[in-house]
Amino acid sequence: MEPLKIISLKKTILEDNDQDAEKLRGETLGQHLSYVNVMSSPGAGKTTTILALLHALQREFRCGVMEADIDSDVDARAIRQAGYPSVQLHTGGMCHLDAQMSRQGLAALGTKDLDLVFLENVGNLVCPAEFDTGADLNLVILSVPEGDDKPLKYPLIFSKADAVLVNKMDALPAFDFSLERCRENIRLRAPGLPVFPVSAKTGAGIPEAAAFIAAHVRGRN
Amino acid sequence: MEPLKIISLKKTILEDNDQDAEKLRGETLGQHLSYVNVMSSPGAGKTTTILALLHALQREFRCGVMEADIDSDVDARAIRQAGYPSVQLHTGGMCHLDAQMSRQGLAALGTKDLDLVFLENVGNLVCPAEFDTGADLNLVILSVPEGDDKPLKYPLIFSKADAVLVNKMDALPAFDFSLERCRENIRLRAPGLPVFPVSAKTGAGIPEAAAFIAAHVRGRN
Repeated sequence: MEPLKIISLKKTILEDNDQDAEKLRGETLGQHLSYVNVMSSPGAGKTTTILALLHALQREFRCGVMEADIDSDVDARAIRQAGYPSVQLHTGGMCHLDAQMSRQGLAALGTKDLDLVFLENVGNLVCPAEFDTGADLNLVILSVPEGDDKPLKYPLIFSKADAVLVNKMDALPAFDFSLERCRENIRLRAPGLPVFPVSAKTGAGIPEAAAFIAAHVRGRN
Repeated sequence: MEPLKIISLKKTILEDNDQDAEKLRGETLGQHLSYVNVMSSPGAGKTTTILALLHALQREFRCGVMEADIDSDVDARAIRQAGYPSVQLHTGGMCHLDAQMSRQGLAALGTKDLDLVFLENVGNLVCPAEFDTGADLNLVILSVPEGDDKPLKYPLIFSKADAVLVNKMDALPAFDFSLERCRENIRLRAPGLPVFPVSAKTGAGIPEAAAFIAAHVRGRN
């Protein structure tokens, strides 16, 4: 008897998505648009951090936001109340966004008059790491209360990141979190990855993180 | 301010899949092939029931099987040991199969010399109901130990079924399960849906269920 054929469907899906993501990156480059994917656990402060970054970046760039959630629209309302163009993407139970979903979102947002679009990805450290959204910059937000060992537990997402923002630094005294240990754990997974300690609440560190993003966006404009 | 735009990504994905599933049904019809999707909870006895049905149907039809699992290949080995062509489809964590995945599986199995292919879908009563696989016959297996109230709790999958097999009827004395209550609950969700009480273990009721499938397959041949 010949050996049992085992077909990995997910591998094919991921390969198709990788191609589509590469295509989307080419399209946004042609439009002088930067598409920035922000990933984190639930509750790491994605919305507040994106808002703080928008305030710092809006002097130089025309910015918009896509909020991906399984079903709520709380975060998109917060962004809109602050005056930025935004759309709410409902994934209907799915734990990630892929390139095709990104393309739909960008079309709904309308990117003709924008230089920079943030995607607030679904709050999850596993699935969003597997599916390339077609973003040209991938940020991971890790917050102090989550612990400095997260890079060891979720290696894939840190290996896909272009920078890590360590958020809620203002809460450092209340937690057993060492920034040095955190940097070391990130280094083990992704040597040379830039790490920005920030507090979206107090604004500390936001100018440095925003400057990093601005330098990247200028390269696409 | 204009109202917040909310985009349902899953709806679009489901609509794309529905179209692709319809296309696949056309393709298999052209090949005189019947593609039968078997759905149930984990542990309802899908593999054993499919094996019992294969033994009854193989006198008239050339049969093959696709076993979808998140990552194991235990079920595909059982089917092959019984002498039927089979492939193992790994979904890599995904809880359902869609039409595109079905098409890949059928290509890997090779359907040129087959009249009938069973798909053992991922053991789950929610996701498989949402994604049309492109099958021309959808069966739900409900087993006695799961309880006669399942049709009330998982209405969608029963509304998508063309027939329900109530399996493990041999275990009836050990459980508080009423076949009449079960039939009534199914009727509330899907009036007129055929219900076949079976025991894959003893073989009881299998000829009646196999005859129902055979009548359908003849219509595609």
